[in-house]
Amino acid sequence: MNISIAHLGPPGNYSEQAAFFYINWLAKTTKEPAILCPYPSIAQSIKAVAQGQAQLAVIPAENSIEGSVTMTMDAMWQLDNLQIRLALIMPIVHVLISCAADLGNIKTVYSHPQALAQCQGWLERYLPNVQLIATNSTTEALEVLETDLSAAAISSERAAQLYNLPTLASGINDRPENCTRFWVVSQNQVNKSKNLEGQFLASSPNASHTSLAFSVPANVPGALAKALQVFANLGINLSRIESRPTKRSLGEYLFFIDIEANFNEPLIQPALTELLTYTEVLKIFGSYNVLSTDAI
Amino acid sequence: MNISIAHLGPPGNYSEQAAFFYINWLAKTTKEPAILCPYPSIAQSIKAVAQGQAQLAVIPAENSIEGSVTMTMDAMWQLDNLQIRLALIMPIVHVLISCAADLGNIKTVYSHPQALAQCQGWLERYLPNVQLIATNSTTEALEVLETDLSAAAISSERAAQLYNLPTLASGINDRPENCTRFWVVSQNQVNKSKNLEGQFLASSPNASHTSLAFSVPANVPGALAKALQVFANLGINLSRIESRPTKRSLGEYLFFIDIEANFNEPLIQPALTELLTYTEVLKIFGSYNVLSTDAI
Repeated sequence: MNISIAHLGPPGNYSEQAAFFYINWLAKTTKEPAILCPYPSIAQSIKAVAQGQAQLAVIPAENSIEGSVTMTMDAMWQLDNLQIRLALIMPIVHVLISCAADLGNIKTVYSHPQALAQCQGWLERYLPNVQLIATNSTTEALEVLETDLSAAAISSERAAQLYNLPTLASGINDRPENCTRFWVVSQNQVNKSKNLEGQFLASSPNASHTSLAFSVPANVPGALAKALQVFANLGINLSRIESRPTKRSLGEYLFFIDIEANFNEPLIQPALTELLTYTEVLKIFGSYNVLSTDAI
Repeated sequence: MNISIAHLGPPGNYSEQAAFFYINWLAKTTKEPAILCPYPSIAQSIKAVAQGQAQLAVIPAENSIEGSVTMTMDAMWQLDNLQIRLALIMPIVHVLISCAADLGNIKTVYSHPQALAQCQGWLERYLPNVQLIATNSTTEALEVLETDLSAAAISSERAAQLYNLPTLASGINDRPENCTRFWVVSQNQVNKSKNLEGQFLASSPNASHTSLAFSVPANVPGALAKALQVFANLGINLSRIESRPTKRSLGEYLFFIDIEANFNEPLIQPALTELLTYTEVLKIFGSYNVLSTDAI
């Protein structure tokens, strides 16, 4: 039986590329066969796992330039039965795809607004007079290329290969260090709110990172500082902190935190028990390792 | 000479509505006449002030459901000569605009994806069979209405008035507590990085809030906790905390913080001097009051 892996579609976008890397990694390590299941939104790909339609989802968590993917944070907080199994870090390499003979023939460039913004310097230098047109995704931008020989799209190398389209220039993003962290998530049967016992027995004993989220009581000075001090006292580094509105009223936040520690370390359990006293709701999303797609 | 107020255009969107409220407030209080100057992006409206083309800008900082406006945060960090003069809190009330005779005749609803998402429950209840079409802004959605009598758009009451279009339903957002905080920003001639002396002499002596942002040294456990502890020790509440990537590499952040205190209070200056020891770069965006547009 193939493992089903949900991801944001259509094929050729960066979520599918990350899911494809993960399938290759599974094939190399556990030899488990897997299939990709595209969904029309990130939220729907996460829900597919929560509701048992897919076994895993590969979802974008954070980009080094754009920041957190808020849809992913909100869905992880709302759905109570998910666990992060692995983090994948993938470089984002934009390419210029076109059926034009050369750059001189291009009059319009289509892509998602974020991709257009990330290639702004390159576009100003090499295509200063073209018209830039925003599309809903980097793959949607490909649709016009076969009929319009003066059009180009900014998308991924994988999209060019999948749709059999020529690449005119590669690595055109202004910041070469652009990368996105994805999470591989599965179901977790243990209730995660305010009850830490017996959780994450399944997590790898040598996992390097733990992700969690909590809300703090409103209008209590120092509430967040106290919560963070728990980790500081143990010398545990935070590799990420992100606030999201509770959606109840302005000024009330949830905090999403990644710590560089394994949930199963003896020191961590008392720290999390202490954290319970400073937080309203505390959710642990699991301990996991971080894998670079360059290594796959 | 009229005061020029930059904002994200076109007229009828929520930024323009906030700027319009501010003009009315100026007229009532200081009697100063002002004119609105629409710009094609939030970043361009902020730059207009930094470069002296406009005296003030009214820019969205945070929505109670969507969270921080990342473009505003990034621009405030990058531009060194801006100061927040006032915060405006404005309820976001979506209305359904259409030239159709009644709801039964509507086949398509156009709006910005966020507005469509915020009215999802109402749409499912009252217009379950319509097609939803995403546009780049809530005002762009209005363009099709006069020629297509089966089309509707979700936008603001002010947009309906400005473009002389009929409203079929009002307050259709699923969460009535939806509101956005805007900042009114001006130039500030004082250099704000790592040099606190002599700043903000112009800020109101009874201002209630101060906004600041800082980066902390990378990979130092407890760096953020130490910085936040400075305010906790003084019993100062944080009304907001937001992290943004530095755009250098994953895991390096800037922190945007609003504290419920005036920069000119005697206790604050030593606290900010202490904060300098825990931060790499510290920028103070000013002390200001918070005004609800309901009160204007």
